[in-house]
Amino acid sequence: MILRSATRPVAHAMSPIICTVDIVLLTLQRGMLHVALLKRDHAPFAGVLALPGGYVHAAEDADARDAAERTLREKTGIVSPYLEQLATFSGLARDPRGWSLSVTYYALVPDDVIAAANRPEVVLVAIDKLRGLPFDHQQIIATAVQRVRDKSAYSSLPVYLCGKCFTLPQLQSVYEAILGEPINKVSFRRKIDELDILEPIEGALEAGKAHRPAQMYRLKPRYGQHLSLTNRALNARS
Amino acid sequence: MILRSATRPVAHAMSPIICTVDIVLLTLQRGMLHVALLKRDHAPFAGVLALPGGYVHAAEDADARDAAERTLREKTGIVSPYLEQLATFSGLARDPRGWSLSVTYYALVPDDVIAAANRPEVVLVAIDKLRGLPFDHQQIIATAVQRVRDKSAYSSLPVYLCGKCFTLPQLQSVYEAILGEPINKVSFRRKIDELDILEPIEGALEAGKAHRPAQMYRLKPRYGQHLSLTNRALNARS
Repeated sequence: MILRSATRPVAHAMSPIICTVDIVLLTLQRGMLHVALLKRDHAPFAGVLALPGGYVHAAEDADARDAAERTLREKTGIVSPYLEQLATFSGLARDPRGWSLSVTYYALVPDDVIAAANRPEVVLVAIDKLRGLPFDHQQIIATAVQRVRDKSAYSSLPVYLCGKCFTLPQLQSVYEAILGEPINKVSFRRKIDELDILEPIEGALEAGKAHRPAQMYRLKPRYGQHLSLTNRALNARS
Repeated sequence: MILRSATRPVAHAMSPIICTVDIVLLTLQRGMLHVALLKRDHAPFAGVLALPGGYVHAAEDADARDAAERTLREKTGIVSPYLEQLATFSGLARDPRGWSLSVTYYALVPDDVIAAANRPEVVLVAIDKLRGLPFDHQQIIATAVQRVRDKSAYSSLPVYLCGKCFTLPQLQSVYEAILGEPINKVSFRRKIDELDILEPIEGALEAGKAHRPAQMYRLKPRYGQHLSLTNRALNARS
């Protein structure tokens, strides 16, 4: 038993596993979730739109999260305040190069952040218009979208899709877009109060509205990178 | 850019990342969650209690889940009906052998399943009595326990800690042990009804009770490996 165990590290160092990260960067455009894709510049699947991803660099990345932040920054020019590990996809079947493992992350940013990064190679595709993705990227994106939907009902997650300041009706419409259903206004406002994530911006009212301009809000600084959670779904009636 | 990308796979194949799986096998004893540990039989940390884990074997495992199932079976003799990916822990700091990555899973089984596997080397330790674990195993277990608690409030997950048949009061006490608080009986029974996971065992009543023996139930077969979910927490009042 001791002998067998002692030989294993060497045996497996000889058939290394391909270790990568992939990032599902989501944003909202015209009330629909979109994912950021880039054309792959090398084989396999050269020229095909795929998730931003790349190898873990053991010599330079402290951990997989660090690799994901670096990869997202290098490939899209974006540093996302919110980046969460999604799941690890692995096996012999997913990559023609061999047994591979991708630690995947998801991030949410307002679409003006993607525009400001000014990377024309980054393509935003609506999540119901995805076709012909390489590897298991379709499954990775579906897993991310489901996670975002599940989590949004019980947390402040959708706020990361809003800009720096927004009105409560704007925030509600972002929640509705993600959850895919209308939300009762009174119940929504009570739960947003419970989440205790927003602060009014002194003297800032929605521009361009002649009648009853709405108060603008921003995220409290302590929630810049952390979620606030609630026990009762934001789209529930009670 | 193309040249640089083309050289990367080779460069990283020369400094392989250690790919492992670790499994947090949880069970309930005397109303307290316990985790299954084994003494490590080789360096690093030889002789120290640690999670069952091991290398991913690219030549034999179809994917990381397959590696986790094989490792759990080899190390503990157990095939768990429920096994879910928890998270991937990675980096240079967690293993003295170098940059490593562990895809972790958690499983829940009744403690008589562990006893029946008859592996005296498997040690069950209460989760509030864990001391001196190697690597980041303490953090992995804490993450698993939190996941089980979060998920139990909204799903049938705790049923996997029950034996093949059980009464409703027994099931409620399992939920209470995990959630760490008493649950209102009426509300609990209504939500268990909503989950629609149980079927009464024809003619089976709790043994050894002289007065009003309780009906025995079992999990409906279709939930043998899948959870039933509810939108309203099982420990909520409403």
